Amino acid sequence: MIFSSDNWAGAHPTIAESLVKAAGGFASAYGTSDLDKKVEKTLSEVFERDVAVFFVATGTAANSLALASTNRPGGHVLCHREAHVNADECGAPEFFSHGAKLAPVDGAHGKMDPARLEREIRRTRGGGVHGGQPMAITMTQATEAGTVYSLDEIDAIAAIARSAKLPLHMDGARFANALVTLDTTPAEMTWKRGVDLLSFGGTKNGCWCAEALIMFDTSKAEEMGYLRKRSAQLFSKSRFIAAQFDAYLEGGLWLDLARHANGMANRLAAGIAGSNSTRLAWPSGSNELFVILKKETAAKLQADGAVFYDWPVPHTLSDSVAGDEGLYRLVTSFATKPDDVDQFLRAL
Amino acid sequence: MIFSSDNWAGAHPTIAESLVKAAGGFASAYGTSDLDKKVEKTLSEVFERDVAVFFVATGTAANSLALASTNRPGGHVLCHREAHVNADECGAPEFFSHGAKLAPVDGAHGKMDPARLEREIRRTRGGGVHGGQPMAITMTQATEAGTVYSLDEIDAIAAIARSAKLPLHMDGARFANALVTLDTTPAEMTWKRGVDLLSFGGTKNGCWCAEALIMFDTSKAEEMGYLRKRSAQLFSKSRFIAAQFDAYLEGGLWLDLARHANGMANRLAAGIAGSNSTRLAWPSGSNELFVILKKETAAKLQADGAVFYDWPVPHTLSDSVAGDEGLYRLVTSFATKPDDVDQFLRAL
Amino acid sequence: MIFSSDNWAGAHPTIAESLVKAAGGFASAYGTSDLDKKVEKTLSEVFERDVAVFFVATGTAANSLALASTNRPGGHVLCHREAHVNADECGAPEFFSHGAKLAPVDGAHGKMDPARLEREIRRTRGGGVHGGQPMAITMTQATEAGTVYSLDEIDAIAAIARSAKLPLHMDGARFANALVTLDTTPAEMTWKRGVDLLSFGGTKNGCWCAEALIMFDTSKAEEMGYLRKRSAQLFSKSRFIAAQFDAYLEGGLWLDLARHANGMANRLAAGIAGSNSTRLAWPSGSNELFVILKKETAAKLQADGAVFYDWPVPHTLSDSVAGDEGLYRLVTSFATKPDDVDQFLRAL
Amino acid sequence: MIFSSDNWAGAHPTIAESLVKAAGGFASAYGTSDLDKKVEKTLSEVFERDVAVFFVATGTAANSLALASTNRPGGHVLCHREAHVNADECGAPEFFSHGAKLAPVDGAHGKMDPARLEREIRRTRGGGVHGGQPMAITMTQATEAGTVYSLDEIDAIAAIARSAKLPLHMDGARFANALVTLDTTPAEMTWKRGVDLLSFGGTKNGCWCAEALIMFDTSKAEEMGYLRKRSAQLFSKSRFIAAQFDAYLEGGLWLDLARHANGMANRLAAGIAGSNSTRLAWPSGSNELFVILKKETAAKLQADGAVFYDWPVPHTLSDSVAGDEGLYRLVTSFATKPDDVDQFLRAL
Repeated sequence: MIFSSDNWAGAHPTIAESLVKAAGGFASAYGTSDLDKKVEKTLSEVFERDVAVFFVATGTAANSLALASTNRPGGHVLCHREAHVNADECGAPEFFSHGAKLAPVDGAHGKMDPARLEREIRRTRGGGVHGGQPMAITMTQATEAGTVYSLDEIDAIAAIARSAKLPLHMDGARFANALVTLDTTPAEMTWKRGVDLLSFGGTKNGCWCAEALIMFDTSKAEEMGYLRKRSAQLFSKSRFIAAQFDAYLEGGLWLDLARHANGMANRLAAGIAGSNSTRLAWPSGSNELFVILKKETAAKLQADGAVFYDWPVPHTLSDSVAGDEGLYRLVTSFATKPDDVDQFLRAL
Repeated sequence: MIFSSDNWAGAHPTIAESLVKAAGGFASAYGTSDLDKKVEKTLSEVFERDVAVFFVATGTAANSLALASTNRPGGHVLCHREAHVNADECGAPEFFSHGAKLAPVDGAHGKMDPARLEREIRRTRGGGVHGGQPMAITMTQATEAGTVYSLDEIDAIAAIARSAKLPLHMDGARFANALVTLDTTPAEMTWKRGVDLLSFGGTKNGCWCAEALIMFDTSKAEEMGYLRKRSAQLFSKSRFIAAQFDAYLEGGLWLDLARHANGMANRLAAGIAGSNSTRLAWPSGSNELFVILKKETAAKLQADGAVFYDWPVPHTLSDSVAGDEGLYRLVTSFATKPDDVDQFLRAL
Repeated sequence: MIFSSDNWAGAHPTIAESLVKAAGGFASAYGTSDLDKKVEKTLSEVFERDVAVFFVATGTAANSLALASTNRPGGHVLCHREAHVNADECGAPEFFSHGAKLAPVDGAHGKMDPARLEREIRRTRGGGVHGGQPMAITMTQATEAGTVYSLDEIDAIAAIARSAKLPLHMDGARFANALVTLDTTPAEMTWKRGVDLLSFGGTKNGCWCAEALIMFDTSKAEEMGYLRKRSAQLFSKSRFIAAQFDAYLEGGLWLDLARHANGMANRLAAGIAGSNSTRLAWPSGSNELFVILKKETAAKLQADGAVFYDWPVPHTLSDSVAGDEGLYRLVTSFATKPDDVDQFLRAL
Repeated sequence: MIFSSDNWAGAHPTIAESLVKAAGGFASAYGTSDLDKKVEKTLSEVFERDVAVFFVATGTAANSLALASTNRPGGHVLCHREAHVNADECGAPEFFSHGAKLAPVDGAHGKMDPARLEREIRRTRGGGVHGGQPMAITMTQATEAGTVYSLDEIDAIAAIARSAKLPLHMDGARFANALVTLDTTPAEMTWKRGVDLLSFGGTKNGCWCAEALIMFDTSKAEEMGYLRKRSAQLFSKSRFIAAQFDAYLEGGLWLDLARHANGMANRLAAGIAGSNSTRLAWPSGSNELFVILKKETAAKLQADGAVFYDWPVPHTLSDSVAGDEGLYRLVTSFATKPDDVDQFLRAL
């Protein structure tokens, strides 16, 4: 009954196997091997256009490099207040971009409110050199709250980016989970709507360590090569990432894994809907659920072997959580079994 | 006949297997799993004292974080002119330490000359705030020239570090290769002589991706946790590194692999000693050889399938290399087979 | 009728004269002249203890260097949301400290609310390496809202800093204005209450360009010498700053100038209290007033030659400002004349 | 007999006076006053084209901002080994440009050797992302060795910059001294030959504190506004710089002052030529002389009240300086009097 995080799972057997298969023989280093090139080609097919692909060690690296590439002195990166870049990366985006400000924008359930986003851009511009300047917008899909921006909602953010002449980055640590929820294509969810830079995550969805920064505009790819190397993110035996992505993308495995994880979350949600001891804090759309439980109930579940984290109650929810209740996060993954879910629901 | 680099090899089967074995089940993330802890304990045993261990993505990251932890404004890092940190890391040490200067020190065959090292420290100190201040010394073991500092030579550098009150870092990308050459212990080659910080590399010696920053003084470990996270080097599924190191260190596999690689280099060297078409540029002590060949000969070997790089002729060697000759680097690894060596020597 | 900013004034004649007097002759450079040393000694007397003094070019430099000296990876600097460091320095504190986060704390009229400050420190600490770590608290005295922390209020902030083991910085761009309002001593308003670092501003109070970073703990002064030089803030002909401070501090001129500026603001406030077309947004304590005017009235005043800026209406005030009204800032200085004030009041 | 440095002098009376004259009245802040604009216009006339002008606090700031504006990840700034940016700025250029490498190029008497410059550019480019990339060339005019690049020599450097597509910066801390030596125009010595960015120094030539970064290509001026503010180099009462430059440029005062300083150096040089106890280390062309003296003689002169610094003997000179001799620097300024020179020569 592990619902603590999708990064508590290991690697999917097919992906682990692919890595073993690539272990033998010699191949050129630093991302120039045939396998590296094959995966780059596959990703261009997946996204229906030429893309520049940069394997990196962590999602934080992909996010930080993407934002660093948009760098401006006194720059502000507009993001949701609870975005991973703002709340969980120990200042990596600020470090990589030499001191950019992360400018938080509020909005319900992990999604930036377009009106507030526009206001914040205007506010920053109003201060002249004293206030600095907006430099990029970043959105998370699926969000930290487990929700998913609809295509229309992406359009709304992208329109603001375009009108403000700001590059738009998408943190896709859980890209696949959002994609299968929207039942759309990678191209439709990204560059066709105006996304310029994508952190494409595989780690949370069944890989050991497979993260890629994807640039839809390849004209800046040369510069990114230096940015990546300078931040110590260029793997010598890069094909160990390539081998994972190769298996991950082959035959749509990545989508199957995400469908499974989302399905497990839905199964949990359905069970919770029928419970009277708990309720969802808000509707989810991915593999993360946020539930309100009596603190006592949570403690009992944990004593029974369920592993999950309590979560800070956001502002906007403070009225709906009673004093003896808490907010808790449940995360499923490719490795979650229906039995785990059912056992958890029974324990509830 | 691949002698281009030890990072052209893949992973040793035992290490790949260990990774597969760890793929199942759930484990806590970000370096807190049982396997992570087991490896940390093993490393403390290997080094005969408590050490703080930080897994990172690349050797460049280990080096840069080590140096960043010694940071001082206007700081100079004293290193050999040809050191990896100075010549091959795209300014990563400078970036991680917010603009430190890499201050090159010359010396034959990749080893810093102690007298020059002392002079450079004095020179820097002499400039007051204008000239900046020395902040660390870094040495590479085995060196970029394939040579190995003897224990006495390490003592000489360490004595300078101590007397100048500067932390001493060792870049051990090829630590195992040097260790088996000196036939000493990890403790004797490091902290017992005054090394404070070690980049402990496994990637070039049979792992996919296994690099650790090892701090002998654990008092600064808490700060390093933040430095690592901020530079996007904290893996979520950290046990995929731990699993590699677990197999690497188990039963002395790492030393066996290094002995094999060095042995292949010695076999090459012996063959070259008997050749009259080529000669060693200088004696090696690890798995890297530098040879002087007629350019024509090199081209023929490459046409026959041998893969190796030509190398810039250092200053000090310019008189011994004729106009129609070049300097070439040959690197062996755990994956080099005696047959490859013999085939190469025959082709010579 | 110039009420736009105290930095629209020039220099007080006595200070300008002192500069001319120092123009002749030779003196050693980079802060080592007799005049530099004299001023340092005077400041030690003014603050009733040994202090380390660093002349810099701007208040932004003093603030940024002070915060940079407290640097920690992933560090958060706790400050009022409207603080100059957060809103008006184009990311200089982030740049100088290599990407620190400015963590805004709310509170009425420019003063941090102690309870919110504590909550924010706890929140940051709770996130482990992911969330980063608090590294310093900075308060502004007088505040950006023209108010002044009472000695008790400083105590409250300092107690939090002490208990959280965080250094406390005071941005004293308008230090003298606050000091004469509280009618206390420089020592009582700073280190005796727990302030560790002070930006001591002279520019807004009658100097051309005279800003000093004052460290009450001199043990870190050597490091600051390098930080200042590295940020291009070490003047060669440093005595041109010293000469200004020499006249500024001599015979209490600085306090007289501040008393005058505050007195002019009080005269304005008294006139406004008697007006029925305008009102103070909140009570001030220094040389800045914030008034609510009909937009029409403001426009007329400006047409009549009054120079002042409109100001963004803070959150907390939005209910008290009608649709046809605006918030405006009026700043007095050593150079404001009673006639200017009276003319302005008549025009109202 | 002060020959220690031109920054030991104070300010020329006309310049000090101009500052006093500007002390009264109000003027808009942050570089927007009428006087600021007047000086910008004058500088455009002086340089015979539209230029963007940024007043800053120090020459180090002008140099560092110029180089920061050319920033590239893993960037190398090519400069003479003894250049101020490399040897005397405590890593400020590295800090401002987030870790650029200063790549030293040798050459006699402070001037980069064009062949070595080209070789270093090629070498850097050869390393791919590992070696980083060249990002700018900076030359010093007059040089740190007191020599002056001829127009042809500037052409040679500029041709390399053009062909390598690198921006060319000139550190003109002693711009006026070089200009009067070459008897040419500011335009001919800079943009007409290919200089893109100029640090235009007034401080060493009679101002208190007057340094400007001049951009010949104004298209990047907007970005520079943010860079300057972010580095805490934007003065509020900016007209105090403008007032100095106003007097400095008026009626060619700046050229007169430089001619005087150079003349005093020439008078010294002539005297030394006739002496048999001393000789010039190399011919100078500005207000700095480097002389070889018996250490004993130097000590006696200093005991007699002459103030000057001893200087590290460069490599290339080591054979021409005997064991009982030293290298010494003599600097004249606008404030040096013929009597001082003659007294010094008599003491010799």
